[in-house]
Parts: sequence; C-alpha cells; structure tokens
Amino acid sequence: MIRYEKFAGFKGKLVLVGFGSVGQGSLPLLLRHLDISPSQVLIISGDDCGRAQADQAQVAFKVCPLTPANYRKALDPILDAGDFLLNLSVNVSSLALVEFCHARGALYLDACTEPWEGGYTDTRLSPSERSNYGLREQALALRQRLGNGPTAVLSHGANPGLVSHWVKQALLNIARDTGRDIATPQTRNEWMALACSLDIKVIQCAERDTQTAKPFKRIDEFVNTWSIDGFVGEGLQPAELGWGSHEKYLPADARHHDFGCNAAIYLQRPGMRTQVRGWTPLTGAYQGFLITHSESISIADYFTLKQDGELRYRPTVYYAYHPTDATVLSIHELSGRNLTLQSQTRLLMDDIASGTDALGMALMGHAKGVYWYGSMLSIEEARQLAPYNNATSLQVAAGVLGGLVWALENPDAGIVEPDEMSFERVLEIANPYLGEMVGQYSDWTPLQDRQALFQEDVDLTDPWQFKNFRAN
Amino acid sequence: MIRYEKFAGFKGKLVLVGFGSVGQGSLPLLLRHLDISPSQVLIISGDDCGRAQADQAQVAFKVCPLTPANYRKALDPILDAGDFLLNLSVNVSSLALVEFCHARGALYLDACTEPWEGGYTDTRLSPSERSNYGLREQALALRQRLGNGPTAVLSHGANPGLVSHWVKQALLNIARDTGRDIATPQTRNEWMALACSLDIKVIQCAERDTQTAKPFKRIDEFVNTWSIDGFVGEGLQPAELGWGSHEKYLPADARHHDFGCNAAIYLQRPGMRTQVRGWTPLTGAYQGFLITHSESISIADYFTLKQDGELRYRPTVYYAYHPTDATVLSIHELSGRNLTLQSQTRLLMDDIASGTDALGMALMGHAKGVYWYGSMLSIEEARQLAPYNNATSLQVAAGVLGGLVWALENPDAGIVEPDEMSFERVLEIANPYLGEMVGQYSDWTPLQDRQALFQEDVDLTDPWQFKNFRAN
Ligand SMILES: NC(=O)c1ccc[n+]([C@@H]2O[C@H](COP(=O)([O-])OP(=O)(O)OC[C@H]3O[C@@H](n4cnc5c(N)ncnc54)[C@H](O)[C@@H]3O)[C@@H](O)[C@H]2O)c1
Ligand SMILES: NC(=O)c1ccc[n+]([C@@H]2O[C@H](COP(=O)([O-])OP(=O)(O)OC[C@H]3O[C@@H](n4cnc5c(N)ncnc54)[C@H](O)[C@@H]3O)[C@@H](O)[C@H]2O)c1
Repeated sequence: MIRYEKFAGFKGKLVLVGFGSVGQGSLPLLLRHLDISPSQVLIISGDDCGRAQADQAQVAFKVCPLTPANYRKALDPILDAGDFLLNLSVNVSSLALVEFCHARGALYLDACTEPWEGGYTDTRLSPSERSNYGLREQALALRQRLGNGPTAVLSHGANPGLVSHWVKQALLNIARDTGRDIATPQTRNEWMALACSLDIKVIQCAERDTQTAKPFKRIDEFVNTWSIDGFVGEGLQPAELGWGSHEKYLPADARHHDFGCNAAIYLQRPGMRTQVRGWTPLTGAYQGFLITHSESISIADYFTLKQDGELRYRPTVYYAYHPTDATVLSIHELSGRNLTLQSQTRLLMDDIASGTDALGMALMGHAKGVYWYGSMLSIEEARQLAPYNNATSLQVAAGVLGGLVWALENPDAGIVEPDEMSFERVLEIANPYLGEMVGQYSDWTPLQDRQALFQEDVDLTDPWQFKNFRAN
Repeated sequence: MIRYEKFAGFKGKLVLVGFGSVGQGSLPLLLRHLDISPSQVLIISGDDCGRAQADQAQVAFKVCPLTPANYRKALDPILDAGDFLLNLSVNVSSLALVEFCHARGALYLDACTEPWEGGYTDTRLSPSERSNYGLREQALALRQRLGNGPTAVLSHGANPGLVSHWVKQALLNIARDTGRDIATPQTRNEWMALACSLDIKVIQCAERDTQTAKPFKRIDEFVNTWSIDGFVGEGLQPAELGWGSHEKYLPADARHHDFGCNAAIYLQRPGMRTQVRGWTPLTGAYQGFLITHSESISIADYFTLKQDGELRYRPTVYYAYHPTDATVLSIHELSGRNLTLQSQTRLLMDDIASGTDALGMALMGHAKGVYWYGSMLSIEEARQLAPYNNATSLQVAAGVLGGLVWALENPDAGIVEPDEMSFERVLEIANPYLGEMVGQYSDWTPLQDRQALFQEDVDLTDPWQFKNFRAN
C-alpha cells in the first residue's frame, strides 16, 4: 500500500459543516494527509446525504441545518479553541461562522463566501448588495473589525482558491518564456509590478467541463457536476467582473458599486444569462457563462496598482464557465422557465461515463497572446486518485486540502483571501490531485472568425476589450 | 391489409430532386396515396443516401448534383409537360427549377425556397438580399414575369406549409370559442378581416421537439431531426419576422428592407444567435430560436390590411424554434466556434429513443390570450404511421403530400404560396399523419415570471410587444 504523506498534525476537532459533493470528495484527502484520527472529525450537515460514507470512515455525522437562529447554540458545545471549522455547506453564512470561530479561537476555511439561505436572490437587497462584491466588502469590513486572530481562509477551493495561485505560477511561466530573468515576487507590490510589466490585460478563469453521464439530461431536470443549489445561487447573482484599466467601453448594462474598493463592476442581469467567449486547450474556442465568483474581484483587487490615488493598472478578471453539456442544456431550460428551478436535480457522480474538467486561468494580452494554465483532470484519473469524487469535486478538494494545510501551518493569519497565501506551498500539496497541469500558449483572440456574416460591435484595434468577448 | 385512399391519379413522371430526410419520408406516402406506379418515379439526388430505400420501392435513383451550370442539361431529357417536379433538395435554386418547369409545362412543389449552394451565406449579398424576404420577393417578381401557367407550390412542407393552413383553422376555432357566429371566409380580405377583428397580434410558430437519441450528442457534432445543411443554412440567415401593426418598438438591431412588400423586418444577426420566449402545450414556457422562415413573411403579408395605402392591421409573425435538446447544444457549440460547422453531423432517425415533435401556431393577443393549434406527433406514432420517418419528417411529408395532391387537383394555378391554397383540402389529406391535432388555450404571456431579480426592458401595458418576447 502507498503511504500518503501527512502534511500537518492537529490535535483538536475538525468540524465539517456541509457534506455534499465537495465535503464528500474532501474527506478522503483530509483523512489521508492530516495526522488526525477519524474520531477527531465531526460532520454537521443539512441532510442525510453522505451518511454511509461517514459511517464507513468512522466519522461522526449529525444532521442539523444551521440557521441564523440556531447556529450559535449548535456550534457552542462543539467548537473549542484550536479546533478547525471547515465550511463546505451552502446556505450558511460564511461570515457568521468566521466571527463565531474568531471568538472561539478556532481556525476556519470555506470554499465560497456564502450568505444565509436566500441571500443570493433576496430582492430586498439591491443587485449590488447581493453581488459577490458586496459579500466580499462585508468580509473585508469584518476583517477590519476583528483584526488579528485565528486564521480564517475565505473561498479556497479550486475556483475560487487554486486559481489565484495559478495566476502567480502563470505569471512566472510567461516571464520565463518571454526571456525575463526575474526572481519570484515576494510581496503584493512585486506581483502587481510583474503582471503590469508583462501587460496582462485579461485574466479569464476559462473552464470547459466535458464530463457526461447516462441518462444525459431529462426534461425538467437540472444536472451539474457539483452543487446545483450552489451553482444556481451564484448563477442568479448579477454577472460580475474585475474591471481592467485598459477597458475603453463600459457596457450599457454595467454599474459600478457605490461602496468599497471599486475593482469590479456588475451587469444588471444574472450570470446564467450572460455569455462570453473563451478558450481552453481541451476543445478550443467556446462560449461560456459569465458567472460571478469571488476570485474575479479579489484577483482584480490584488493586482490593482494605484499611484497617488490614480488607477495605473488592473487586469479585467472574470469566469467564463462552460459546465458540462448537460448543464448548459439545464441552463437553457431554466432560462426558458424564467429562472424557476426545475422540479428535479441531479448531481453527476457515479453515473459519469467519461469526460475531463479543464479548469485554468487564461492570461491574455501579453507578448505571446494567450497563456492558459491549469488542471486537465479526467474522470478516470479522478477515480484513480480518490474515492467519492468526480473530476470537478477533486479539483475543489485538492484546493480545500491545500488551503487547510496552509492554515494549520499559519494559524494566526486572521481573515485571508487566497491571493494572500503562499502559492507555492498550496500548489505543492494540491498538485498530485489535479491530473495534468497544462500550460499552453495560443494565438486565439475573441476577434477570431468574427464578422463573417454580420457586422458586429467590436474593437479591431484591441482584441482584449471586454466587448469583444461578450456574446450576448 | 389496410387500403390507403388514392387521392389523385397521375400519368406523367414524378421527379424527386433530393432524397434526404424529407424525400425519404415522403416517398412512402406518395406511393400510398397517389395513383401511380413506382416506374413513374425518378429520384435525382446529390448523393447516394437513401438508394437502398429507392431500390426496395423499385424507384429509379440517379446521383447528379444539380448546379447552375448543369441543371438544364440534366432535367431536359427527363421532364415533360404534365410531369411533376418535387424539389426536396438543399442547395438547388427553387426559382431556377420553377422557371424551368414553367417553360416545360410541368408542375412543381418544394418544401423551402432555396438558393443555389452558398446563397444563404454569400457575403457579396447584403443581409437583406440573402434573407428569406429577399428570396420571396424574387419569387413574387418571377410570378409577375411568368404570369399564369402550371402550378408551382412554394415552400409547402409542415413549416412552411401546413402552418399557414393551421392559422386559418385556428382563427375559426377562436371565433367559435369566443362566441362568434361566422361562415368560413372565402377570400383573403375576409380572412384578414377575421384576424383583425379577433385582435390577433402575434402569430408564433411555436415548436418544441423533444426527440432524443443515443448517443445524445458527441463533442464536435451537430445533431438534428432534419437536414443539418438546411437548418444551419437558414440559421445563419438574418433573423426575420413579419412586423405587426401593434408593435411600438423597432429593435435597435432591426432593419426594414428597401424593396418589396415591407411586411417583415430583419435583425442584423443570425437566427441561431437570437432567442425568443414561446409556449407549447408539450412543455410550457421555453426559449427558442428566431429562425427565419418564409411563412413568417408570407403569413404577415397575407394578413396585411391596408386602407388608402395606410397600414391598418398586420400580425407579428415569427418562428420560435426549440429543436431537440441535442440540437440546442449543437447550436451552443456552433456559436462558440463562431459559426464554423462542426466536423461531424448526425441526422437522428432510427437512433431516436423517444420524444415528440410539438409543432403549432400560437395565436396571441385575442380575447382568450394564447391559442396554440398544431400537431403533437410522437416518434412511436410516427413509426406506426409510416416507415423511413421520424416525427419531424413525417409532419413535413404530410405537408408535401397535401400540397402535391392540391397541385394535381389545381394544375393551372401558377406560382402559389401556401396561404393561397385551400386549407381544408390540404388538411384533410395531411391530418392522418399528424398524430394528435391539439388546440389549447393558455394564459401564458411573455411577461410571466419576469423581473423577479433584475429590472428588464419590458412593456407592462402590452404583453404582446416583440420586445417582451425577445430573450437576447
Ligand atoms: N471554490 C470552488 O472551487 C468550489 C467548487 C464547488 C463548490 N464550491 C462551494 O462549496 C460549497 C459546497 O458545494 P457542494 O457542491 O458540496 O454543495 P452540495 O449542494 O453538494 O452540498 C451542500 C451541503 O450543504 C449542506 N447544507 C445545506 N444547508 C445547510 C445548512 N443550513 N446547514 C448545514 N449544512 C447545510 C447540505 O446538506 C449539503 O451537505 C458551496 O459553497 C459551493 O459554492 C466551491
Ligand atoms: N417546410 C418544412 O416543413 C420543411 C421541413 C424540413 C425540411 N424542409 C426543407 O426540405 C428540404 C430537404 O430537407 P431534408 O431534411 O430532406 O434535407 P437533407 O439534407 O436530409 O437532404 C438534402 C437532399 O438534397 C440533396 N442534394 C444536395 N445538393 C444537391 C444538388 N446540388 N442537387 C440535387 N440534390 C442535392 C442531398 O443529396 C439530399 O438528398 C430543404 O430545403 C429543407 O429546408 C422543409
């Protein structure tokens, strides 16, 4: 039997909140690579899903949906100083748990900054308030208020999560391949300067998931390779993007927020109804959905260079998601139902017959055009690497493991975003679970094959303008 | 054995040009219901497809792709006065064949007014010229020039074709159901007056095809239940719609043509990239593609009421096509490839596992809201009714048969559009092949469930404005 490396020891309790696709996929990795016994682990979930897996792993499992009213009472007898709360749920406020952990002296990590149930579609909130920008500003305000303390890693799965580290690795690779002789930057200022000097105009999280199952998709069914609740929730948030300093045309349906860092804009429409052009090495050019993600904002903010209060440099950053074909169809159907969720949902897992999740960061606008750097993980590889996973969940689980180990190694970092962590250490831990790590250049631009039949509103002088990417 | 009724006798030759999904589906019906022997039939096709079927039916089959250079020479020795040319090909100019038949004294019918190969995407032509409006105006000019003569029926399959007759039947049904005591109109003026008095604002060809096959759809494959060439060709034409007199907002990307009847507008974008909201009894509300079709123009023109040169009434007419789910995905993929056709295509036929083609005309804006009238034909029913068909092709074949019999019964009508034929006679012949003919009212409007999360540009005072239907 292979002996898996134990990256970190840990004496306290590991409390998992939520045990869906990401939780189930993460548990085997955590038990493998942390020096803990199953009896230290406790799962608190919203439903019974995954109980058999927990039983088999000899991990305690409790169904107790957390709400604003009960979460303190529920967590109070469980969580002590030095424990770790790993939040992999939907519909549970990340910030409420972060604050609770802070007070308790417990460490924290989640894979998405979530609001309480209904927060993504609460129409008492303005689109700006229910955006990820809004949620992130709340997190930054909480960080300000709480100050130093136990580490709480926000939004550290694959994307958000690993992708922030891939951007840094990609910058280094581009520097190397364009003949720059540089040392690895050590500070945010140095990273910013590198991105700026390489002329990175657009950073697209470019994902093409070709996993496919039988049956393909039923009528009146929403199919996905990870949380349907999670995806539909974020898909109904406004489309959001980090707004680069090179952009000349603010879209007519775009708005700036009137609070916070101003690194991002939002469109007055849901991401699930907003399509953009992208490129991956897996299948080439595609149209994906501009789904809001916290990395679109945090990366844009991280790389924002200001001088004397004036914006000097910022890349445009957004997610161009081509989920599985069955998911694309599910979105089309959902759209035709005016966004009223289908009566059935299906999270693809053991029924997956084939396919690969190609998830990477495409850095564009530099001397070599486009550079896509990321993970190409097939379902077959994923199944060989770990049980209870598909390719998508394993990429996330790898990020969760990497982030959690980093937090254990850096327990007093307070609230941190992925961009602020050590990319090398996290990637070292995550990489073995990511299949092939691919770095590929391309001469693709969003102007390729355009205007063949109809005139389009494009800027031929600068391929990297957002309006050239936008497909509807 | 059931004896099928012979609707018309016929001594000459029946020459089929093209023998793809519609040709193959039509042949059994023609041999069943025409008083002809197989030796009177000759197929001229662009490829070998369907040869075994022809052999089995003892019908002569010749591969000879027609071109502007060879079609006269090819047809000259074949076609005599009194013969019938049934054009079910793609990439062969309908008008060239109509003119040839006129000179020869032969009858003619096609299921689509087609240009020569490449005509739909010939960028030397303006979008207006390569629109169906442009093609129809050429046909009307030809009719003007040729005058009376042997009957040539243009565009008579299911849609275009039967749908024109369903509009009339639907008008009568709505009149009946709203307590009008009227006789069946006999003239265009009377039909116009009826539609106007019922306050029909929108006539949507609302189709939802749920047929599905295994495998569902491969990557880099375009899948459809009828001609892929035909569908992609029309899908790349500009989106077109008959433009109703109640419309208050000309879309920003819309243009009027600067020639012809002016019953329709076009959008400066391909139909395959243009989505609209629709409703069918099969699956309710959906989003479909606004694919240009000749009926959108001919029906709008037919029902155009002018007084003293002033427009008094016209319905908005267009096609809201939800093809099979695999086709929707094919379109999404094609769009991501910037409309460069996939390397593989597949016309679904024997591999279809289940599904129904619901094809109807939805008349909207009258006292009872929406009335959908049309054919709901399942693949199982289609297979019971005739060999060599799926549900889609059989609906078309039924229209071809009905139109052809009408032409034989009315051999001196010159060039005619479906709207000018006897709807009762055609439907009498076609109906047995259409599965259940459904007439259903609904309180659906395109404003249903709108604006839940985001403000949208809608007109709340009039649900039937085109901008309320438009989805992108
Ligand atoms: N960063 C990334 O790469 C990435 C990728 C995928 C998912 N995610 C995030 O990970 C989280 C989990 O995703 P998933 O695919 O596992 O979701 P899932 O829908 O498969 O599982 C959600 C889990 O949350 C539990 N839950 C729901 N309501 C709860 C409540 N009130 N209290 C406690 N538990 C509750 C459910 O019982 C379930 O176990 C989501 O926030 C999602 O957005 C992040
Ligand atoms: N009105 C309707 O309801 C309706 C519905 C479906 C199809 N159609 C029309 O019917 C026609 C046929 O559709 P289909 O689905 O059978 O198409 P298909 O692609 O299945 O078959 C096309 C046929 O045309 C032949 N062909 C191609 N080029 C030719 C050439 N140069 N000379 C002679 N033959 C040639 C091909 O060999 C093939 O037999 C198309 O015009 C299509 O738009 C109409």
